[in-house]
Amino acid sequence: MSDSADLLDETVPHDEEEQVTHKLIGEIVDAISDSDAALAHGLFEDLHPADAADAVEQLSYDQQIALAELAPRVFGGEMLAELQDDTRADIINELDPGHLAEAIQDLDSDDMTLVVEDLDPEMRARVLAEVSDSDRERLESSLAFEEDTAGRLMQREFVAAPTFWSVGNTIDHMRRAGEDLPDLFFEVFVVDEAFKPVGSIPVSRLMRCGRDVRLADIMVAPQAIIRPDRDQEEVAYLFEKYHMISAPVVDDDGRLSGMLTVDDMVDVIQEENKEDMLALAGVNEAGSSDTVWSSVRARAPWLLVNLGTAVLASGVIAMFEGAIAQLVALAVLMPIVASMGGNAGTQSLAVAVRAIASRDLTVSNAARVIWREFAAGAVNGLIFAILMGAIAGVWFQSFTLAWVIALAMIINLACAGLAGILVPLGLKRFGADPAVASSVFVTTVTDVVGFFVFLGLGAMVLL
Amino acid sequence: MSDSADLLDETVPHDEEEQVTHKLIGEIVDAISDSDAALAHGLFEDLHPADAADAVEQLSYDQQIALAELAPRVFGGEMLAELQDDTRADIINELDPGHLAEAIQDLDSDDMTLVVEDLDPEMRARVLAEVSDSDRERLESSLAFEEDTAGRLMQREFVAAPTFWSVGNTIDHMRRAGEDLPDLFFEVFVVDEAFKPVGSIPVSRLMRCGRDVRLADIMVAPQAIIRPDRDQEEVAYLFEKYHMISAPVVDDDGRLSGMLTVDDMVDVIQEENKEDMLALAGVNEAGSSDTVWSSVRARAPWLLVNLGTAVLASGVIAMFEGAIAQLVALAVLMPIVASMGGNAGTQSLAVAVRAIASRDLTVSNAARVIWREFAAGAVNGLIFAILMGAIAGVWFQSFTLAWVIALAMIINLACAGLAGILVPLGLKRFGADPAVASSVFVTTVTDVVGFFVFLGLGAMVLL
Repeated sequence: MSDSADLLDETVPHDEEEQVTHKLIGEIVDAISDSDAALAHGLFEDLHPADAADAVEQLSYDQQIALAELAPRVFGGEMLAELQDDTRADIINELDPGHLAEAIQDLDSDDMTLVVEDLDPEMRARVLAEVSDSDRERLESSLAFEEDTAGRLMQREFVAAPTFWSVGNTIDHMRRAGEDLPDLFFEVFVVDEAFKPVGSIPVSRLMRCGRDVRLADIMVAPQAIIRPDRDQEEVAYLFEKYHMISAPVVDDDGRLSGMLTVDDMVDVIQEENKEDMLALAGVNEAGSSDTVWSSVRARAPWLLVNLGTAVLASGVIAMFEGAIAQLVALAVLMPIVASMGGNAGTQSLAVAVRAIASRDLTVSNAARVIWREFAAGAVNGLIFAILMGAIAGVWFQSFTLAWVIALAMIINLACAGLAGILVPLGLKRFGADPAVASSVFVTTVTDVVGFFVFLGLGAMVLL
Repeated sequence: MSDSADLLDETVPHDEEEQVTHKLIGEIVDAISDSDAALAHGLFEDLHPADAADAVEQLSYDQQIALAELAPRVFGGEMLAELQDDTRADIINELDPGHLAEAIQDLDSDDMTLVVEDLDPEMRARVLAEVSDSDRERLESSLAFEEDTAGRLMQREFVAAPTFWSVGNTIDHMRRAGEDLPDLFFEVFVVDEAFKPVGSIPVSRLMRCGRDVRLADIMVAPQAIIRPDRDQEEVAYLFEKYHMISAPVVDDDGRLSGMLTVDDMVDVIQEENKEDMLALAGVNEAGSSDTVWSSVRARAPWLLVNLGTAVLASGVIAMFEGAIAQLVALAVLMPIVASMGGNAGTQSLAVAVRAIASRDLTVSNAARVIWREFAAGAVNGLIFAILMGAIAGVWFQSFTLAWVIALAMIINLACAGLAGILVPLGLKRFGADPAVASSVFVTTVTDVVGFFVFLGLGAMVLL
């Protein structure tokens, strides 16, 4: 638990307010290299699990593994749940199955699943053999759902009450139930006789009503009822849109079987945002992983695709070798047309990917948005055509070269705007992620069009 | 409130589950063009405010303004609060101040502030004149804080209880207080005699304790106590890291003055992610705005900067005009070296910007991450040097050209890795946003280095 005095001291600059300081990391690294288990445990003792996870993430892969061997108790259940997915996957397979089974036993079922799902099959079997029967049952049914679905993310601890109960019945039930309830909850789900969720009541409202009030009179229809096979991104979107704090998850028969809470959805939102951003830049899933080799593996595939498209663009240039040999100014200026197109295309693309992710770009306004992107590209093309035409005209003392590059600029930036919106929309239409691969397609269009139009016009007019 | 039966019907494909359908948007557009106010009001009547806001965002700017004139009652307080910032700013200045004052009167103070802050000064004064004295006081003190700070975002409705109260006292107080409490709350803040927050108790825990239990015995220290001038991005980071649901905000004397809740933080997280993504692609703030002109304005500045750097890169090419005139293959191949460097640099940059935003890249591991990016760039450079060397060798039947492009590729991709990490770190060191302007700097490096090394080596060796 952080010291509130620290957080309040305005004279402390932002970085020193952090629990995980550069000094602490240095001490942890020293404890690891000195194999001082007691010191390592001591350094982590007072840290919030989230801070402990942050500290571990600052270490190199080798240091993380050494720490796991030296001081396994540092890796408690809550801290493991706080680690980033790739770090956790690296570390847990190095821990003792008995330790792991003990570490996760007090976690809510969603966090328990988070830890166990990253284990190798053999390790997973050994950990499952060590946990209690009821935990094993919960884990196995969670793991039966696909990754990145509501079923994987939900916790099986929730508070449900039948419609005919009063506020007083419900409060008494919660006081009695104790351990079986989740650590924290924000809504009581009201269920009918078939255990289907028919309403929800925020705890803060429940608390303000008299004991005699019937639940049926104060409940509201749940904002959303989630199926367990629903993709986590869609669920997070519902939470965000309707400002939901928790939501019921039902099984195939519509019976209440779990609960999703907003703090887990915040993690999903961040994960999806990170994926979109890295995908746009052409980095595969394991983008933020630690080692040189994993970084190379995460990036090489898209560099390979880019090499292919760059060679294609070069093929276009090669068509005009004769023109370039006669007028080298064409070679000097051609990257400007391609680069401006690439930039304009990337701008359109980022706006489009963002609008698709936030559901702002739909069939109802697609035509208008496509027109806007085309027109914005063409208008910017006109602005920079004038500017670049003037520069080229002065530089190479050629009025003809000036208007060739100007015309190429207008055409390429208008195409860039179109490609920036049509490529992600096309990918989405074919069921692909609009963020993945879009960049490469768009820059291929802008390179090929840019080189072809500029060199083609140049060859026609100038030679 | 959505119909739960709809949400459960698995035979309904995803898009039709939406409340805001293409059909509905079409009907709204028809109602606007027919000036049918009753129909417009009717179409919006049963929509959740978030869905109503989504529907309005699907309309063009002109349609939005026409709808505001035709059917102002569509723009209720909750719906206005749900609109995206730029859409809301466009619309509210077209509404009648009296209508606005009435629409916002039932909102929590944070949502009220959200609506009023976007008004023109004159409109704002007129709305403030119409609201109740207590609302005006709250609004004026919220508006006194900077935009994008905790003070602007916080709501002034919260539940506080002194340390010496029992659970029973607290519940009785909440039942009595009624209207003055926030619509929803998740924690009771425990305050000392100076009204400083010293603890917090989740409502779900309070509810499960007996009436005689003293608050002092069940409270925990607040995970964070927020100053009102704190930047919203930092606050959202705390919420995300510590899985917080609400947090107390204090005034200069440390007295409890407001509350932040996680649903508002979800909006902040999305806003900051959107800004980072658009900034990386070179789109200014108003990136998703509706009209062609606003799109042009949001993008032209970075296109201008890109034009400058593209001309710079062309200047490098111009240094080797003689070489190109003798060996046009240099002009054909040079964009490949630059393009591969640009891609590798963008990959490093996206990973770095993401790691800085999530606080994973710190002074403790910066040296290791810089090394990793350099090495990953160099290794990928080696891989694609071999591949591209082979392609160039076969294409132009020249072993010398093959190893010139291979060597240039290694050097440019290693520089790309370094630039991708050093540029955002450098911007951060100088207090700038690492996402803004990074792309342009990185691609300038990779263009200039790529052209210079490839053409320079080519000129030296081949001629």
